[in-house]
Amino acid sequence: MKSVKFKVKDMDIASGGVFIVILHEKDAKELDLYSGDRIIVKKNNREITTILDISESRRAVPPGQIGLFEEVLDKLKVKQGSQISLRFTGKPESVKHIRNKLFGNRLNYQEMYHIVDDITHDRLTNIEKTYFVSACFTNGLNNQEIVDLTKAMVATGNRIKFRGLTLDKHCIGGVPNNRTTMLVIPIIAAAGFTIPKTSSRAITSPAGTADTMECLAKVTLTEKKIRQIVKKTGACIVHGGTMNLAPADDKIITVENPLSIDTEGQLLASVMAKKYSVTANAVLIDIPKGKSTKADTNAKARHLKKMFEMVGKKLKMKTKVIVTDGSQPIGNGIGPALEARDVMAILKNDPQAPQDLKKKSLFMAGVLLKMAGKKNGLKLAKQILASGQALKKMEDIIKAQGKAKPCQLGRFKRPVRAGKTGKIKEIDNKVIAKIARVAGAPHSKGAGMYINKKVKDKVKKGELLYTIYAESEFKLKLAVEFMNKNKGYLIK
Amino acid sequence: MKSVKFKVKDMDIASGGVFIVILHEKDAKELDLYSGDRIIVKKNNREITTILDISESRRAVPPGQIGLFEEVLDKLKVKQGSQISLRFTGKPESVKHIRNKLFGNRLNYQEMYHIVDDITHDRLTNIEKTYFVSACFTNGLNNQEIVDLTKAMVATGNRIKFRGLTLDKHCIGGVPNNRTTMLVIPIIAAAGFTIPKTSSRAITSPAGTADTMECLAKVTLTEKKIRQIVKKTGACIVHGGTMNLAPADDKIITVENPLSIDTEGQLLASVMAKKYSVTANAVLIDIPKGKSTKADTNAKARHLKKMFEMVGKKLKMKTKVIVTDGSQPIGNGIGPALEARDVMAILKNDPQAPQDLKKKSLFMAGVLLKMAGKKNGLKLAKQILASGQALKKMEDIIKAQGKAKPCQLGRFKRPVRAGKTGKIKEIDNKVIAKIARVAGAPHSKGAGMYINKKVKDKVKKGELLYTIYAESEFKLKLAVEFMNKNKGYLIK
Repeated sequence: MKSVKFKVKDMDIASGGVFIVILHEKDAKELDLYSGDRIIVKKNNREITTILDISESRRAVPPGQIGLFEEVLDKLKVKQGSQISLRFTGKPESVKHIRNKLFGNRLNYQEMYHIVDDITHDRLTNIEKTYFVSACFTNGLNNQEIVDLTKAMVATGNRIKFRGLTLDKHCIGGVPNNRTTMLVIPIIAAAGFTIPKTSSRAITSPAGTADTMECLAKVTLTEKKIRQIVKKTGACIVHGGTMNLAPADDKIITVENPLSIDTEGQLLASVMAKKYSVTANAVLIDIPKGKSTKADTNAKARHLKKMFEMVGKKLKMKTKVIVTDGSQPIGNGIGPALEARDVMAILKNDPQAPQDLKKKSLFMAGVLLKMAGKKNGLKLAKQILASGQALKKMEDIIKAQGKAKPCQLGRFKRPVRAGKTGKIKEIDNKVIAKIARVAGAPHSKGAGMYINKKVKDKVKKGELLYTIYAESEFKLKLAVEFMNKNKGYLIK
Repeated sequence: MKSVKFKVKDMDIASGGVFIVILHEKDAKELDLYSGDRIIVKKNNREITTILDISESRRAVPPGQIGLFEEVLDKLKVKQGSQISLRFTGKPESVKHIRNKLFGNRLNYQEMYHIVDDITHDRLTNIEKTYFVSACFTNGLNNQEIVDLTKAMVATGNRIKFRGLTLDKHCIGGVPNNRTTMLVIPIIAAAGFTIPKTSSRAITSPAGTADTMECLAKVTLTEKKIRQIVKKTGACIVHGGTMNLAPADDKIITVENPLSIDTEGQLLASVMAKKYSVTANAVLIDIPKGKSTKADTNAKARHLKKMFEMVGKKLKMKTKVIVTDGSQPIGNGIGPALEARDVMAILKNDPQAPQDLKKKSLFMAGVLLKMAGKKNGLKLAKQILASGQALKKMEDIIKAQGKAKPCQLGRFKRPVRAGKTGKIKEIDNKVIAKIARVAGAPHSKGAGMYINKKVKDKVKKGELLYTIYAESEFKLKLAVEFMNKNKGYLIK
């Protein structure tokens, strides 16, 4: 089979996971191959299935050679000039299932598993993944398909098992700060319960819980270390991204982002699969309702609540869903350093600490304690916070995870003042988030803003609304430019 | 703006059209950029909008550098080590329209134009294009949207204007050989009418008209040359691909292929836009009905006929649609050289020539002549063919386009014989096409097969069904391997 041996060209480029090989179009034509076709490349006893790209340029890949991306070179242990052999294989079975879904058919668990497994292992192209997301979006997933998608996400990822009652919480996002996790977790753990929390980093917001916690402690830890921490303290607040829990989720989100679409099935599966992967059996879901959140009407909030309860029930997880006020930021700081400061102020019972964030966190801790069998959950939560036990627990968690170098507040700042006297009618979460991001958050931990006025507050012309912080003059300038177009405050 | 200058790294790779740049993830985070974001890169007075890719590998693209693909290097006229500056821009407006379509809304002409224009100029990523195709597929296009898509495809491409009555024909494909174009065109031109035919190459079939004509004449010609040929001979049979007629079409097909989906709107727009781009005003559309074609039921054939007529009417093109028998190959040769031989045998009135192809072509030519005002079209067509005028016209066209080096029939062959005595009930077009492709067609012009028996023919065990031809022993072996699994003939 002389004609299917090729000489390796090292492309000196990484694809970010997917196994890509490149042939010159002359060879591709000769072999009747097309972009996206699957090719099994083999060297000695190593072989992997790759996705074909075709080059028209002899400079990139000359005929007779095969261009390999770094991932493929590493996996096959070959280098520039090696001889490798090729075999051709059809598209993965899952492409058929995706096609069926596009035609409006229902998928069973086996089919859903095939698709999710191939997404997890980068066996599908972006085009194929997009058809899957698009088909789920336009044709919808029924309840059983959502449950199957959730189970498939769990089954194709890592699971970390904890014994007995294991609590968890999740918020669907869309509200700046709202850093309840970092208060609820120490309260629940201080009450003696197990609550191993894996959190995400910000995607479009100025800070995620993982970004904020990173101002206090290390968040990227091994599974073994996490087990030790939870055993010792009853809790953790770590970044879930490196733990391979429901890894298909991030890969699906990658093709949702370009069109900013949210597919309900994916949202539900994403959240519940991550809880299920840490064997949580009592989960509190927070759905903030507001213009900037996924639940921008009462009907949507109610519907989402019902759907979360449905998935929870099918997975045999005790699931409680609360719909909360998501109309404005909760807490005063926006951005990792400033949000961490809010959290610590509340734990220290500082009277200057933001009361809205404190109140909401206590309420949520109360609900969770009730789910765990405590009669007066809210009262207990308040006691734990007021007594300093929550602060002590947080310090234990930080110590166990490894204390981080404190985040410095950005040294470039700009106060933003009210343009007129009146009452604050509205704060636009999206504008606030955007200003903080343009200022550098979450990548610059000390960037963001500190808010002095909230909805219903009275202000006089010239009074401070908020202060923007940045770590460079350049970023501050960009943020101020943006703020000059829109402050995000409606005063009447 | 120091922070947005980058040093060029030549990636030594082509993307096949799209303008791609790569940043290291550190820089992307710092600048809050994501994969798929649009970046305007600038050097001196040259600037282009590119699509961002992000690399995790310092080896591929180190921080501070920007990896450019060949297309971008050429366009900006920069090389390894040049300094270029970056500006950031939002996604194209058309992404919003695609999103709207995904949500089930209707698109107006302006919106459709934006999308098609951005597809034509490679301003959309594969993911974005896939959402467009998927949204059109699942939510459908109404009549006005199909007409607008057609007009937008025309408007974003080249137009070649011919004066007065200009005829054209098209077949939606799916039937091996069926090379009517190469007979209809010389007959119509010999009757004194203008019929400039642009054809495509095979995508999944063993030969397209352009591949077959290439065995007789050059088919890749400049627009100027084509005008001269049509002026001189009244006709041409050329490859449309290089003439930039409705160029969005091929780019849409690229994202349809991975899932083998046909969106009706795209099919209609594709065909009619190409006719409209050469200012055809009387068009004959052939819809073969059969298991292997896009019209696999009577209802589908009728529906497609109605749709073609609708689009034709809206574009003010006289459009006649015929539904024909697509149940088995038409003609005897399969593959460029063998199909060209069939065509020339018919033009030469060779009694051994395939009568089915002759009859169908005469019928179609007759219909076109009638559309052009000739009373007894079929009779006239027969006269033109029998008298040798059609052959003379074909020779003129070949001479005008430039005679090609004749295609040699593959020298490796294998006869395939009936396994039993009986009557041929069915021939599977897809299997026949596959065997010919595996043997090397259309890339190997001399590869394919010659068919001796058709449906309803009686055969004795051991009698010749067809002969496979290939240009290499290796390809013949592959084709025979495939044939051994399935001959494509049902004998009862």
